[in-house]
Amino acid sequence: MKISKRPLYLVTDALNYSEEAFLNRIDAACQGGVDLVQLREKELTSLQYFQRAYAVKQITDKYHVPLLIDDRLDIAQAVKAAGVHLGQKDLPVDVARQILGPDAIIGATTKTLNQAQLAVEQGADYLGVGAIFPTTTHVETVRTSVDTLKAIKQAVDIPVYAIGGLNAENVETVKPAGVDGVAVVSAIMKAADPLKATEELHRKVIEVTN
Amino acid sequence: MKISKRPLYLVTDALNYSEEAFLNRIDAACQGGVDLVQLREKELTSLQYFQRAYAVKQITDKYHVPLLIDDRLDIAQAVKAAGVHLGQKDLPVDVARQILGPDAIIGATTKTLNQAQLAVEQGADYLGVGAIFPTTTHVETVRTSVDTLKAIKQAVDIPVYAIGGLNAENVETVKPAGVDGVAVVSAIMKAADPLKATEELHRKVIEVTN
Repeated sequence: MKISKRPLYLVTDALNYSEEAFLNRIDAACQGGVDLVQLREKELTSLQYFQRAYAVKQITDKYHVPLLIDDRLDIAQAVKAAGVHLGQKDLPVDVARQILGPDAIIGATTKTLNQAQLAVEQGADYLGVGAIFPTTTHVETVRTSVDTLKAIKQAVDIPVYAIGGLNAENVETVKPAGVDGVAVVSAIMKAADPLKATEELHRKVIEVTN
Repeated sequence: MKISKRPLYLVTDALNYSEEAFLNRIDAACQGGVDLVQLREKELTSLQYFQRAYAVKQITDKYHVPLLIDDRLDIAQAVKAAGVHLGQKDLPVDVARQILGPDAIIGATTKTLNQAQLAVEQGADYLGVGAIFPTTTHVETVRTSVDTLKAIKQAVDIPVYAIGGLNAENVETVKPAGVDGVAVVSAIMKAADPLKATEELHRKVIEVTN
């Protein structure tokens, strides 16, 4: 599989950081052991998103960490990212697959078993499932139980990531679901020391994933 | 040239129309003689933009009118549109050209001679220049004089469209610039009778363009 054995997945949030502080934090996360990075921007113009994606790509390339772009296939193509992550309000997975081709990594956010099965049928490479806990970074987020997470994991044959309010303290909660990985935002993006936080998270995530 | 002899260019604005009323208006505009349509949406999710672009494409295809998508290359690719229109806050023209290839139509908004020359160097197929008059549909719009429009037209060898507050009453203003076409939003999107308005505009635009 395209993304097997990549248990710790960072989804970015630029919050109120300066460009430099934001990029330094991603560098620290890559150094600390994140296996996959998704750049997620909702407020930027296309030009700004492109420029930021280009800057992030220089960092992830340095650490050989695949970079995915949230929502925007064109930004992913513009910076030659490894692929995209698609929510339920973004382009359908099968449409994205036609545009990006077989080698691109295409992930999908799914909150229910039906959504998960559809994403797999349409050609998704992995699923992000949540929110497991309440989160401050995604507004309007619907919660998903660990039971649903487990049911999805058992129903599909692609990697499943738990997401939503997960951190080093609570990540054991998802262990019963047998997921392949854990995606975090705040646990790294808001950490006092992102390098140490990532290292600690990485150890914990290895313990709770297959 | 890819878009020669296409003098009347409709840029859409969905305003507060229902989906059906919006699509009917585009149908009337195509029937009335618009030569090029740009779908321009700023508030939709990617899924909504895709769905709307798909619906508009059914209409423009019926009339053999090329459809361009504002800003979003991925939406253009998803519906197999003829190309994209890029503003100064969108992806650079040369980046878009690399992604979309030589056959796509790529237009650029330029407000100055420098911007126009850069867009041509980067591979633009046509330029939209304005706003010639104040406009209610583009916020934060900088005005461009007819003199600048003329200077741009004389400096470049691709089609130049005048845009910004133009309608059947004032379109003669741009005649001295010798532009190839006129792009309108409100003159059709807000017309009481979009079919008649387009027919009248088409006649006037033929008179004032090369």
